[in-house]
Amino acid sequence: MTYCLGLLNRQGLVMMADTRTHSGVDHIHTNPKLFDFSSLGQRAVVLMASGNRAATQAVLAMVRRDLHLEITPNIHTHNTLHETANYIGDKLRLVEARDRIHLERDNFNFNPNFILGGQLPGQPPELFQIYTQGNHIQASYETPYLQLGESKYGKPILDRGYRYHAPLFTAAVKYAMLSMNSTVLSNASVGPPLDLVIYETDSFVLSHRHRLQADDPYLVKLQATWGEALRQTISCLPDFPRQTGSSNLGVYGSLEDDSVAEG
Amino acid sequence: MTYCLGLLNRQGLVMMADTRTHSGVDHIHTNPKLFDFSSLGQRAVVLMASGNRAATQAVLAMVRRDLHLEITPNIHTHNTLHETANYIGDKLRLVEARDRIHLERDNFNFNPNFILGGQLPGQPPELFQIYTQGNHIQASYETPYLQLGESKYGKPILDRGYRYHAPLFTAAVKYAMLSMNSTVLSNASVGPPLDLVIYETDSFVLSHRHRLQADDPYLVKLQATWGEALRQTISCLPDFPRQTGSSNLGVYGSLEDDSVAEG
Repeated sequence: MTYCLGLLNRQGLVMMADTRTHSGVDHIHTNPKLFDFSSLGQRAVVLMASGNRAATQAVLAMVRRDLHLEITPNIHTHNTLHETANYIGDKLRLVEARDRIHLERDNFNFNPNFILGGQLPGQPPELFQIYTQGNHIQASYETPYLQLGESKYGKPILDRGYRYHAPLFTAAVKYAMLSMNSTVLSNASVGPPLDLVIYETDSFVLSHRHRLQADDPYLVKLQATWGEALRQTISCLPDFPRQTGSSNLGVYGSLEDDSVAEG
Repeated sequence: MTYCLGLLNRQGLVMMADTRTHSGVDHIHTNPKLFDFSSLGQRAVVLMASGNRAATQAVLAMVRRDLHLEITPNIHTHNTLHETANYIGDKLRLVEARDRIHLERDNFNFNPNFILGGQLPGQPPELFQIYTQGNHIQASYETPYLQLGESKYGKPILDRGYRYHAPLFTAAVKYAMLSMNSTVLSNASVGPPLDLVIYETDSFVLSHRHRLQADDPYLVKLQATWGEALRQTISCLPDFPRQTGSSNLGVYGSLEDDSVAEG
């Protein structure tokens, strides 16, 4: 399994991916799922991948080949990030045409997915999710995050608190970390080291790129502080009104049916 | 979809279930998923159900019939809750023998599941999960909760904070409410009204039974207070160290591969 998360933010982008890959529980490896294709000072372009590793690696190999051979278009020639998303989708469709039937013949799903984040000059930072089918959607002010893979465990914290206008360094990064941490704690197939990119609008350089190990002091401190803060917060929440012999038994649907059970 | 949650606690049990059922998004109804089969002052027995409603209703109908006709065994005659769990499992297997092949012929899954919670005299409160196959597992001190249905959204809050020794009224109930609230916010097919039972050890009576509507004042207040508290807590967490030109680029696996992209 995989968890990749991209946050669209007023001040930039946060992109985070775990690195655990496995074919069954006895075949666990570390492989990067976050890839930097930026062109220093000119364009910020970051890809994150989930699903069949053979398929995502094939897409990345074709992207690199086009760059290496200076084929046009390549990932440095597009005028908009929307075009780059289409370009990745086109590569996905080439891999799909080559591999899908062979996978499905042996009951494997063909399921690669990508998140593309970055910024081109004169345009705001953008975040796209590129589906297995090669089409894509874009994060927005109202829906300021995109996820790949094991997305459910890390979603409530984002829905409750993360907003487009949250400060990038003092809030957005923490939401990304906690969303990732919730997922790592709940699914053993999502795990560290964790790759993190914090991109600041109009910088056109990925100056904040980190690989966080399981014992990273900040991660360890964040997890402990957060757990303790949650428990304290719970105890400060208003208590549930403790009346006995609840007055709303009459509308308690199942009880009427089961009144025989109280005889 | 469904979300049912049972918390095993030093001071008793908390059981909570949503009531939304649907066959597609245009066919949404309210149906109870929490059923009280307690015998006042003698035994506390509560069932929660997920999966095919036809199957779970068939099981409940047989349980009620045995009680009504005073057949032995019935849900009031077992000496342990383990026997009651087996009894429910036996009913499930009868329904399975009757219906499964007909469902699967039309590509429906046969997937009923139950949580059984309660207490019998001389024994501690117990909590069981009864699988579609009729077998069951039991919650424990180390794993003090069980879930049915849409379980992922509401799991991180429990893993981070809920413990067997948490005070029943001032903590456990709040964890159950927040776990349910996270799920309701994330999955439109899980929804209010919400059924809640708080059982106190050795009381042998379900004195705290509530059906909470969407506009229940406590629920509304809890959700608002929690959201605000989370945002405040985030801002108090230590900030991510904001150095630029990260020193650990060398171990940033994907970057070496993609160095061509920076040329």
